[in-house]
Amino acid sequence: MKKVTVLGAGLVGKAIAIDLSSHFEVTSVDVNNEALMELNKQCPAVKTIQADMGDEQQLKQVVENAHIVVGCLPGFMGFEANKRLIALKKKVVDISFFPEDLFGLDELAKEQNVPVIVDCGVAPGMGNIILGYHNERMKIYNYKCVVGGLPKTREWPYEYSAVFSPIDVIEEYVRPARYVENGHLVIREALSDPEHIHFEGVGTLEAWNSDGLRSLIKTIPNVPNMIEKTMRYPGTIEYLRVLRETGYFSYEPVDVNGTMIRPIDLTAKLLFPKWKLKPGQQDITVMRIDIDGEENGKEVKYVYDLYDEMQDGVISMARTTGYTCCAAVHLLANEMYTTPGVCPPEYLGINEKNFQFMLEFLKNRNVIYKVTKSIQK
Amino acid sequence: MKKVTVLGAGLVGKAIAIDLSSHFEVTSVDVNNEALMELNKQCPAVKTIQADMGDEQQLKQVVENAHIVVGCLPGFMGFEANKRLIALKKKVVDISFFPEDLFGLDELAKEQNVPVIVDCGVAPGMGNIILGYHNERMKIYNYKCVVGGLPKTREWPYEYSAVFSPIDVIEEYVRPARYVENGHLVIREALSDPEHIHFEGVGTLEAWNSDGLRSLIKTIPNVPNMIEKTMRYPGTIEYLRVLRETGYFSYEPVDVNGTMIRPIDLTAKLLFPKWKLKPGQQDITVMRIDIDGEENGKEVKYVYDLYDEMQDGVISMARTTGYTCCAAVHLLANEMYTTPGVCPPEYLGINEKNFQFMLEFLKNRNVIYKVTKSIQK
Repeated sequence: MKKVTVLGAGLVGKAIAIDLSSHFEVTSVDVNNEALMELNKQCPAVKTIQADMGDEQQLKQVVENAHIVVGCLPGFMGFEANKRLIALKKKVVDISFFPEDLFGLDELAKEQNVPVIVDCGVAPGMGNIILGYHNERMKIYNYKCVVGGLPKTREWPYEYSAVFSPIDVIEEYVRPARYVENGHLVIREALSDPEHIHFEGVGTLEAWNSDGLRSLIKTIPNVPNMIEKTMRYPGTIEYLRVLRETGYFSYEPVDVNGTMIRPIDLTAKLLFPKWKLKPGQQDITVMRIDIDGEENGKEVKYVYDLYDEMQDGVISMARTTGYTCCAAVHLLANEMYTTPGVCPPEYLGINEKNFQFMLEFLKNRNVIYKVTKSIQK
Repeated sequence: MKKVTVLGAGLVGKAIAIDLSSHFEVTSVDVNNEALMELNKQCPAVKTIQADMGDEQQLKQVVENAHIVVGCLPGFMGFEANKRLIALKKKVVDISFFPEDLFGLDELAKEQNVPVIVDCGVAPGMGNIILGYHNERMKIYNYKCVVGGLPKTREWPYEYSAVFSPIDVIEEYVRPARYVENGHLVIREALSDPEHIHFEGVGTLEAWNSDGLRSLIKTIPNVPNMIEKTMRYPGTIEYLRVLRETGYFSYEPVDVNGTMIRPIDLTAKLLFPKWKLKPGQQDITVMRIDIDGEENGKEVKYVYDLYDEMQDGVISMARTTGYTCCAAVHLLANEMYTTPGVCPPEYLGINEKNFQFMLEFLKNRNVIYKVTKSIQK
């Protein structure tokens, strides 16, 4: 039985460890012992180790016997941890979504002869895989992905629950968004160009520009129009824009009665309890991908619709993100993907067998992408 | 020529000093020398003194020769300053709108045999005067006052400019609002019960519960329904409710990376530049008072409408608040009002001659209350 070490036992890391434990000998590592005890209670088959993965020696020790390492660390730790894992010749699947350029690790991974799959969640993740698949099989004109992780019930004012740290979520509301239009890179303010989109059974959501394309901007230069938008319940983004405009998201310290303070830090402090997914609260994931272009001489359009909700105590964001990551672990374990170097998810979609394997793997866990193909006559 | 000392040379205090200088020998006092220099440039007839009015000795000195003292200090300084002025046997007109119970000064003022007119602006102020007038002449069922000081042009997101300190404005959004319904005192959350009201030439405004009745709750026990609401451009209060809900208006210190900070202090710091009336920016004051009841055996309804805007470089809030205050100074100077003790403005409205004098005084400055009387047949 192959050995897999999962770094990070947060909501997503925990679900990954449990899912992988049915096929692998899994070790889960976290600095937070409570999270580990909770995981151990739910799934005694997973071995747990408390360690600080920011420490090179401790990291080395916990991955020593692992055939594959899964990175579910916070974004700010991701790049450095990956670099160290590659230096240790580990095969990696990572969902830390670190802000650094992922190709910055490519040379090292090739030198060390290991495949390193990054950004392998739902978005980024499945969007890339689907685009990567079709990009090999048709001439794509437009790629559009809209995606949102939301609480099932709406609570004023934010109608939002973060399963990640609020400061990382706020980053999405501040960082300029990049998309590709008519072959040119366009940079727009985050939260811009809101549009209402209707989803059967969910209702109307509001999509806005977020910086979600990441590696696609580099790896898919032939598609002239590519955009990803994040979704919230309508109204939320207006409040966020007001907070941003007022200065509450600023990293610039201001003098408050003689004390220098970064407004973002107070904001994170105040919003954390507001945005926390409460015990028993359910979440949903909604994603729609539109791809159109020319295939076999015909104008075709593919629409992928994902609607998922919390099931069997596992939150939807952990299901949609985590199980995609698990599928990639199986690809590595089965040597279905072996190319050394950094692998953004769009590379996984190139191979028909791998693509179908991933969709099937997710379907078996009831994460279902409903595909509609329409051909213009 | 009688001597008047005006304490405070802010936007309103300055307009008061200049207006009074045509009839009195006026001294303006402020701790801020820039404000005094500005006033001196505009009106050399006004004598200026820099002094700290929180200091008992300095206060005593600057009012030594004054026949009448006008208080335009920030709210938190008002009560103590008034107390000291009364102890010095000074006649006072005050618009500091201090939070303490104004009748707490009544006994002392009676002992010292001086009239002390407080809350004598536009709201509180003219609303009280108008209610005081009609309350003597009819059986009132309902009194409703809606009032707002607003920038003439609307700027997203707050569409608001504060001529007072933002922290005092925020107080309005936090302090529970009291009104009288069917003879009972009702306490409601601030910003509650929003309603849209249309004003010819201004458009639709949004009125909400604020704690504006003040002395009327005590002095007019016979009117079963009394309410005052503050107005903003529609939408603003939703943003304010979100800020309040998030905790940004809280006075409770929170730990931000080891530093204890009151969210309200950061908020005041961030909002001050946003809410500041910019040079050249114009403001307006909109007020509507509805009074209905029985007069001479008939059901009658009075509506008072005030629409005022910045004129001749004097902002509207200074005109509507300051000139009401000036009219009261003339009442004292002419010995038209002489009753010792604390005098909330509704007392000034009781006397027909005084009431007409005040309306006329304001009309001469183009602050016009348009009165409509309708009699139910």
